[in-house]
Amino acid sequence: MPTPLSEKLAQALFAPRAVAIVGQSNDPGKTAGRPLKYLRQAGFAGRVYPVNTGRDTVLGERAWPSLSALPEVPEHVYIVTGTAQVVETVRECGALGVKVATVLADGFTEAGAEGLARVAALREVAQRTGLRIVGPSSLGVVDLRHKAMLTANAAFDQHPLPLGRFFAASHSGSMIGALVSRGAARGIGFAGLVSVGNEVDLSLGEICAATLDDGDIDGYVLFLESLRHADALRAFALAAAERGKPILAYKLGRSSAARELALSHTGALAGEDDIAAAFLQDCGIARVDTLDGLVEGLPLLARVPTAAHGMRQPRVGVVTTTAGGATMVVEPLAMRGIAIEPPSAETLGRLAAAGLAVTPALLIDLTLAGTRYDAMKAALGIAASAPEFDLVLAAVGSSARFHPELAVKPIIDCAGSAKPLAAYMVPDAPAALAALSEAGVPNFRTPESCADAIAAALKRRAPRVLAARVEASAFADSAKSRLLDELEAYALLDRLGITRAPAIALNASAPRPLALPFPYPVAVKALAAGMAHASDIGGVALGVRDDEGLATAIEQISASVAERAPGTGVDRVLVQPMVSGLGELLIGYGVDPDVGPIIMVAAGGLLAEIYRDRSLRLAPVDLATAHEMITEVRALAALAGYRGQPAGDLAALAQAIVALSGLATLGPTILEAEINPLIVRPAGLGVVAVDALARLVV
Amino acid sequence: MPTPLSEKLAQALFAPRAVAIVGQSNDPGKTAGRPLKYLRQAGFAGRVYPVNTGRDTVLGERAWPSLSALPEVPEHVYIVTGTAQVVETVRECGALGVKVATVLADGFTEAGAEGLARVAALREVAQRTGLRIVGPSSLGVVDLRHKAMLTANAAFDQHPLPLGRFFAASHSGSMIGALVSRGAARGIGFAGLVSVGNEVDLSLGEICAATLDDGDIDGYVLFLESLRHADALRAFALAAAERGKPILAYKLGRSSAARELALSHTGALAGEDDIAAAFLQDCGIARVDTLDGLVEGLPLLARVPTAAHGMRQPRVGVVTTTAGGATMVVEPLAMRGIAIEPPSAETLGRLAAAGLAVTPALLIDLTLAGTRYDAMKAALGIAASAPEFDLVLAAVGSSARFHPELAVKPIIDCAGSAKPLAAYMVPDAPAALAALSEAGVPNFRTPESCADAIAAALKRRAPRVLAARVEASAFADSAKSRLLDELEAYALLDRLGITRAPAIALNASAPRPLALPFPYPVAVKALAAGMAHASDIGGVALGVRDDEGLATAIEQISASVAERAPGTGVDRVLVQPMVSGLGELLIGYGVDPDVGPIIMVAAGGLLAEIYRDRSLRLAPVDLATAHEMITEVRALAALAGYRGQPAGDLAALAQAIVALSGLATLGPTILEAEINPLIVRPAGLGVVAVDALARLVV
Repeated sequence: MPTPLSEKLAQALFAPRAVAIVGQSNDPGKTAGRPLKYLRQAGFAGRVYPVNTGRDTVLGERAWPSLSALPEVPEHVYIVTGTAQVVETVRECGALGVKVATVLADGFTEAGAEGLARVAALREVAQRTGLRIVGPSSLGVVDLRHKAMLTANAAFDQHPLPLGRFFAASHSGSMIGALVSRGAARGIGFAGLVSVGNEVDLSLGEICAATLDDGDIDGYVLFLESLRHADALRAFALAAAERGKPILAYKLGRSSAARELALSHTGALAGEDDIAAAFLQDCGIARVDTLDGLVEGLPLLARVPTAAHGMRQPRVGVVTTTAGGATMVVEPLAMRGIAIEPPSAETLGRLAAAGLAVTPALLIDLTLAGTRYDAMKAALGIAASAPEFDLVLAAVGSSARFHPELAVKPIIDCAGSAKPLAAYMVPDAPAALAALSEAGVPNFRTPESCADAIAAALKRRAPRVLAARVEASAFADSAKSRLLDELEAYALLDRLGITRAPAIALNASAPRPLALPFPYPVAVKALAAGMAHASDIGGVALGVRDDEGLATAIEQISASVAERAPGTGVDRVLVQPMVSGLGELLIGYGVDPDVGPIIMVAAGGLLAEIYRDRSLRLAPVDLATAHEMITEVRALAALAGYRGQPAGDLAALAQAIVALSGLATLGPTILEAEINPLIVRPAGLGVVAVDALARLVV
Repeated sequence: MPTPLSEKLAQALFAPRAVAIVGQSNDPGKTAGRPLKYLRQAGFAGRVYPVNTGRDTVLGERAWPSLSALPEVPEHVYIVTGTAQVVETVRECGALGVKVATVLADGFTEAGAEGLARVAALREVAQRTGLRIVGPSSLGVVDLRHKAMLTANAAFDQHPLPLGRFFAASHSGSMIGALVSRGAARGIGFAGLVSVGNEVDLSLGEICAATLDDGDIDGYVLFLESLRHADALRAFALAAAERGKPILAYKLGRSSAARELALSHTGALAGEDDIAAAFLQDCGIARVDTLDGLVEGLPLLARVPTAAHGMRQPRVGVVTTTAGGATMVVEPLAMRGIAIEPPSAETLGRLAAAGLAVTPALLIDLTLAGTRYDAMKAALGIAASAPEFDLVLAAVGSSARFHPELAVKPIIDCAGSAKPLAAYMVPDAPAALAALSEAGVPNFRTPESCADAIAAALKRRAPRVLAARVEASAFADSAKSRLLDELEAYALLDRLGITRAPAIALNASAPRPLALPFPYPVAVKALAAGMAHASDIGGVALGVRDDEGLATAIEQISASVAERAPGTGVDRVLVQPMVSGLGELLIGYGVDPDVGPIIMVAAGGLLAEIYRDRSLRLAPVDLATAHEMITEVRALAALAGYRGQPAGDLAALAQAIVALSGLATLGPTILEAEINPLIVRPAGLGVVAVDALARLVV
């Protein structure tokens, strides 16, 4: 956990009593002209010092020639100069005792050696003086309660902006403008927003953490381009969960194209998306994949209790005046794995007793009952108290546009319902949406954002506790590593309590054993440190049937490896019995540079690689989580008794996953470990590793 | 192709000189009170006759007691009575010589035997008198040019509604309200809209076809719940393509939940979604999967030329003032398989020559150049003439909201560009969007709808010509069928020119052959008509090595089938050599009840079934299409030389697919035929069917 920022620092960030804008331009149309304009427009109550080396006045106010010339030390300085002036200005901030400097210019982490030298200079100032830095490439820090509009984002050229109880943090500067303007258009306001830029000092997680005990902030909206500084993000997420403050995130990188972009335009490394998904889920952060879902989703998230692990699948009930329109939400919900629950016989009975003509079906469809206030009100009331639903979606047809009294008013009148309620309007119905927002009913403009937000809210879990875990940062100095040979890797498995095939090593030049300790047929593999994939260089023989075959196999392996991997001396071979089972798969442990130790379960073989059929979690995992992972690998359905096939020993598989994931608790010693394949035998007979590799930090 | 409606019928549907509203209520708040209100509000110029059996006046106008009492025969009657009065009123329409009756009430195809009897009565009137019927369950027919507001949809309670050049047709009545209102909010208008209801007489395809030669209509927006009446839809689509009029569709049914809903609430059968996708693609209909994409997409579709089959992957260039905001479009584009193309060296050179600082990267990012009119204008001009782009996307950041002169105006000034242009605004920027719409630049409110519409437009193909194909309707009378035995199925393959394993039949009770015409090892299978899956009942033995093994296998097969499928007499067994290859897969021909003959290629085995890895087309297909299908089955990458594996004979595979799909041209004789597995041998050595089944219409 990063050092929590003091309240004083939070105050300097969001409620500074005095601010300076260094580089403030006299032209309000220019980027560097905006901050002063927006501060004045919003009515910022603190003191503002524009600094401009070339002018006595800017935008009609006195301009100061330098920070040193000011009559006091400002708490927060927004530096909107060109790149060349930044380092010098930051040094001046540090020397004067400024608490926070926010830097607009780019030309740092993304700008090669020259940029990295500037980054080092900024960090040096921060470490030496205690100055905290936001950015560079930050479009600003905004607090709407204190009218602290320290931003150059053009979307803030508006007053008043709606004040709300959410805080937004974004890797992308333009997205704070998208959030504030799109939120305003939907009646959703923010307490504050920050564009974190390159995070050379303060990271997104640290900035958000500084607001955790702010009683005006109920939840967080994050726009993430990567998972850099994941440790701080996770620490913030865990602390937010303790306080019951939900976090909703949009994370770029579902496509490899977007991951490459994240890399090219911010200089950040970006990992595989399923690693990000596992990280966010294990942190208790809900994830949406639409922009509208991010803007509209938090009011719903704030009303949906966090699901416990291992809870049954959440279920949604739908009350609608239009089956066709409602199905447009059902469809993207189903694509996200959220099931619609039909009303129970008891619920149908209560609907009938209330005089509502409803055909038993997946939706509570009021088409026959008619679009009437009393019908909608009664149906919503019954659905809201039906135990089979975790959330009730009300979808209203064309009447929502000009006759909200018919089917929108009853939703508003159910706003106090104990069960989470979400509303979707089929036509364009801005007045109905505004009335719903005003009444505190989470509501959605499109069927896709509605489904996106509902799925994100219902799938969110409490953060998973990862006791004694090594964080990614602990591996920062682990540049050197050594690949263990297979016998060494087997010894590691033995320590972890994972069953592996018995194996002996034979001298390749004088291989005759007294007697193999297991019967033929056997597998024979070249045994050499630093050799990851023996089969790729002809270093493996399978199904060897007798002593003569064994001798031939060893000769062939030695010859093949010598030819295809010159320099890899095969002094020894490993011999193990052939093991068969119902199926095979891969389990792997690794250390992601962003999120740290992860554990993976994947289907084995080439096809599984093509289908990318795998499940990931932060390591370590417990048995319940291991079982969840098993159900997430589609191919493993074949081992769970699919279509009458015999069931594999999934209990033993789960234990092996837990055991391998325990590497995360052994300190920064193992960088990766993979069992491929792990043979799954019939239920009760366990699992057996028949090949393994591991990489040790040296 | 359905009989084209005469111009006279189109005129009665959309531009009637006299209309009657039967069941018109005096209460404009009720559904049955709306049509007269909307007609008058819009200023319909024709004659309107409200018919109400209980009142002399409705909404202040004279009401007539019956259709027969009117002074003239109306051309179009909208029947808004309860279900019970519909059949009688339709009979009256037929007797009087009314041309079109549109029916609002439900209680027909979805209402059991009673409902189906009503349907039969309506059809009888239509066939006997020539009356054409829209609905039942139709929320109406609207023509905005003629102010013919024959609708009870509450979203039409607005005047004026924007007039446009698109025609919308929907299975769902509420969706015409969603389209007209959401379109109006985005500056997109319609020429007309129809809620087709249950289509007991006029189908969606026929109604749209009636407008094909309407010079005021440039394109079509369809909301489909199922593919019922697919023949008429396809005929319409082909005729629309001939006229260069694009069609954009949203089709429910991507999830099984939605397919069940389509079934339960309209009574229609709903097929698998990949069948629908294949049908729409082969019809040249572009498909979106978001509601905003449907509303906003047609202006773009109308500007993107239809791709020829086999064309290279379409490529999108992006010009942006904000990389983060633009990436939100890149991401969903990538998820839909549309690649962003980086600017070529030549394009970068032209950008540099224009004085624009642009880092070589995937996007043309003007962040360094600054958000300026001249920079955006120059960059768009250069991108629009760059040969590497098929479409240029302009993504504008926060300046779009209050400073459209900076980066939105230049897009408008490029509206005349020869290359398709699409615009996405990162912040909420309604004025910018309206200005873009006004200027004719396709523009999008969300990154997801932008990506959805771009992908739909770029992936659209010209309809595929399917000469001499049997349509689904030809199989309507084919209730009886017979499963061929494997030898008969092999004979069918022989006729089609598909190589299969040699095989002989042996008498099961006296099996000794003189000599097998092929060497051991062999496969032995029970041979009996009507038995689809011999292996499920112990009817298969593989790898039989000699005469003795053959005798044993036959005994065991006979015993097993006798025990597990009593009554299936195994008089004969089929013996064929074991065939091996690089891989195996399944190819299948079938007749979908909606779309007719289809051809499928799928990966073989249990895993492929779990992953649903398959490609579908309407049958027949040509070689180019067969090759496309092969590339769409992910597992077949393993046969195309993936990761250094030897390549399979994909040319022979494509020929086999073409040959099997040719069943679609042989008349309504074969209902299904499946080769599973088809063994793929190394390139040049062909493919071999080693099991087959087929079902013959009798």
